Amino acid sequence: MANSKYEYVRFFEQPDNLLPNTWIVVRIDGRSFTKFAKKYNFGKPNDRRALDLMNESAKSVMKELPDIVVAYGVSDEYSFVFHKSCTLFERRKSKLVSTIVSTFSAYYIHHWLSFFPSSPLEPPLPTFDGRAVVYPSLQNLRDYMSWRQVDCHVNNLYNTTFWALIKKGGLDNEDAERELAGTLAKDKNEILFSRFGINYNNEPEIFRKGSVVFRSYPTPTPPPKSTAESLTPSSLLA
Amino acid sequence: MANSKYEYVRFFEQPDNLLPNTWIVVRIDGRSFTKFAKKYNFGKPNDRRALDLMNESAKSVMKELPDIVVAYGVSDEYSFVFHKSCTLFERRKSKLVSTIVSTFSAYYIHHWLSFFPSSPLEPPLPTFDGRAVVYPSLQNLRDYMSWRQVDCHVNNLYNTTFWALIKKGGLDNEDAERELAGTLAKDKNEILFSRFGINYNNEPEIFRKGSVVFRSYPTPTPPPKSTAESLTPSSLLA
Amino acid sequence: MANSKYEYVRFFEQPDNLLPNTWIVVRIDGRSFTKFAKKYNFGKPNDRRALDLMNESAKSVMKELPDIVVAYGVSDEYSFVFHKSCTLFERRKSKLVSTIVSTFSAYYIHHWLSFFPSSPLEPPLPTFDGRAVVYPSLQNLRDYMSWRQVDCHVNNLYNTTFWALIKKGGLDNEDAERELAGTLAKDKNEILFSRFGINYNNEPEIFRKGSVVFRSYPTPTPPPKSTAESLTPSSLLA
Amino acid sequence: MANSKYEYVRFFEQPDNLLPNTWIVVRIDGRSFTKFAKKYNFGKPNDRRALDLMNESAKSVMKELPDIVVAYGVSDEYSFVFHKSCTLFERRKSKLVSTIVSTFSAYYIHHWLSFFPSSPLEPPLPTFDGRAVVYPSLQNLRDYMSWRQVDCHVNNLYNTTFWALIKKGGLDNEDAERELAGTLAKDKNEILFSRFGINYNNEPEIFRKGSVVFRSYPTPTPPPKSTAESLTPSSLLA
Repeated sequence: MANSKYEYVRFFEQPDNLLPNTWIVVRIDGRSFTKFAKKYNFGKPNDRRALDLMNESAKSVMKELPDIVVAYGVSDEYSFVFHKSCTLFERRKSKLVSTIVSTFSAYYIHHWLSFFPSSPLEPPLPTFDGRAVVYPSLQNLRDYMSWRQVDCHVNNLYNTTFWALIKKGGLDNEDAERELAGTLAKDKNEILFSRFGINYNNEPEIFRKGSVVFRSYPTPTPPPKSTAESLTPSSLLA
Repeated sequence: MANSKYEYVRFFEQPDNLLPNTWIVVRIDGRSFTKFAKKYNFGKPNDRRALDLMNESAKSVMKELPDIVVAYGVSDEYSFVFHKSCTLFERRKSKLVSTIVSTFSAYYIHHWLSFFPSSPLEPPLPTFDGRAVVYPSLQNLRDYMSWRQVDCHVNNLYNTTFWALIKKGGLDNEDAERELAGTLAKDKNEILFSRFGINYNNEPEIFRKGSVVFRSYPTPTPPPKSTAESLTPSSLLA
Repeated sequence: MANSKYEYVRFFEQPDNLLPNTWIVVRIDGRSFTKFAKKYNFGKPNDRRALDLMNESAKSVMKELPDIVVAYGVSDEYSFVFHKSCTLFERRKSKLVSTIVSTFSAYYIHHWLSFFPSSPLEPPLPTFDGRAVVYPSLQNLRDYMSWRQVDCHVNNLYNTTFWALIKKGGLDNEDAERELAGTLAKDKNEILFSRFGINYNNEPEIFRKGSVVFRSYPTPTPPPKSTAESLTPSSLLA
Repeated sequence: MANSKYEYVRFFEQPDNLLPNTWIVVRIDGRSFTKFAKKYNFGKPNDRRALDLMNESAKSVMKELPDIVVAYGVSDEYSFVFHKSCTLFERRKSKLVSTIVSTFSAYYIHHWLSFFPSSPLEPPLPTFDGRAVVYPSLQNLRDYMSWRQVDCHVNNLYNTTFWALIKKGGLDNEDAERELAGTLAKDKNEILFSRFGINYNNEPEIFRKGSVVFRSYPTPTPPPKSTAESLTPSSLLA
């Protein structure tokens, strides 16, 4: 069959192999999750079921893709790290990003009812976008992780205070926003403590620091197939 | 909060905006679908439920992404076309690919039970990878579509004959392969007709030509919101 | 010889082939030419010898690279156009840009004394940088050319008026700048005409419109090897 | 002036900033130098004047571009290394490559008569192409340098033996090629020594090992402006 007449279109495909010897991070983000969280009544400022579902989906991704060495999640985003020596899919960017996004999305839908048993999903469904970035040095990678964790901390302290002002302080959204405008971390800590008796440092670590999925390699006996577990890091900060 | 110390890692993100004024095609492909099809006992050479599920998922993608103008599917792959004037996501490649792959995967899982009610999904789940290619001219785009449809035709004629030899002719896989080695299209047509009384041209169009999802814009009255429908094209060949 | 130990470094080279079926424009620009023009006392607002040297160098480039179909120059910049069907160097961007920049630079130095016989070059030498851009449609290419020509017109009208104010009007640089701030094209035309008796439309076309180098293909007799000539276009505007 | 109508063409320019925190190597190569060397009767197997001209041009490049930390040359190629922290031209690939290629080409033409005083250049002129590659680690960079130097060694040993067979052994090109087919380094050393009394290790280092241009920073007194010198390295091999 003369397929050759059309096969020239293949030459429009442009290679996108990522630079060798660099750490690959694929970060996925929930699309329109503010709206989605409202639709399914996610708790504020954090919904433990939603975070557990993110973590469960991330663990499924790591089980299916053994090349991922570690993953870090916060809110509706997750970062998956491939070792700098990784050669999966010849390091093709689109292939790596799309495979992770597809796998994560599939498991998020699949696991949904285990975490939200009384709220079956209705279209529009939750979806994620993704991107890949490469980092030449381990220090760059650590700083990337710290960047995400600082983001987690800053957002969570704000959200915790914001929702305390609303739920316990009786303010409406606008007033709570105004109250927090220009405040520093210590101001928010003070508001939480003096007005609502909340010691921010006693808030659950999973809210304050995010989640890490890493591989556990038992050392004494011959190593079985690796498994993926999630935990909250005491700190990822450099 | 001094986030700036780590924020430099943003500069490692490299832009991937696709060239303006070109047709964007995002093609997704099922990952390890041979194994997946066997696990869920897909019919051979074609499984109508599986194709209907692909089409239903593609329609869901088009409903969520109004910028897609047309989509073409065959087997476990689907091509989504954005108009050359499209500016969605500033034409960022990773964003376009990951959003389509995520949305398709989510709906594939979500719709599964409607098409395979007696076979609930078990991990590993079906997933898809994706890539984006741009075509400068309408002729290039037509040729891309023809390329995929010729592929559909070549594969389906082969598979139809192969499975007729096995199911109706009693051959095993190796013998069927040997029988077909080096045969032309007319030879396969002849085998089907003379040995099994099958006129290949009477096979369902959805098997021979693939599926198209397009938008229907009613013309006489003021246009309501567009809807997405799928059909089998009489021909996409140029 | 065991070269293989180090040859892995080749895999760090990333392909940069330009998209097929698009018009390639390589534009080169003089580096620090304001300073360079001062050093060699280029005439103001235009130096005919400098423009002739640019044109001569561009013609040399076109003689050495038969794949270039047309070139357009203004001031210290030149744009070289490759046909959308061009396959030179497999359309590798770095190879195309570096070859044109190298050839242009070599001839600029080589021809220098023919145009500035009494001013031999001394380091630092005149050099050029370059970039490649692809345009999917002929209209895009025309608009690119128009963009450069409008730039030529805007700059030349400004410079012509600016230097008339200084040379004939006795103003210093600051006063001339102030005088022109906020003026429209018609204002500058009026200044030139009413104060200095200059009808801008009578200025040499090479200053007002730039230069084009194209190939002349004699039609009646069997075509000899193409030659490259430069001329001033009556207009490139769409 | 309504330039905006055409200015949209700017959006076709695609950024090409090189990944931060990686070593940048720009390698230039002579175009068609076999033919060029024949035209100007370059000595065989090496022409000292031609190498000195390459080195002189490389030194000029390093004087004009203080961001280059070291350069390595062999035959008609030269590699220029920018530090991984370099931010010159925002690390834009085309800008870096074209500037180096242009500067090198300009000085090669400019210096020519100092090295070939009796052979003025005639078109077609010598030109160079160039490319940029980034290396994430210092080890990768060292291996790149070793790769080029091994190449120098392999080629020079072959050429030295080849031309000895012709010039001193009276063979023609075909016979010399046949004689060397399949030989190892030690075989070539043996041919040189036993037949022609040549101890390869006594050949000039500049032929056997290539040339390095580095910056000399005097340490005892306050550092003056850096200068660029060339030398032959005892060894670049790791």
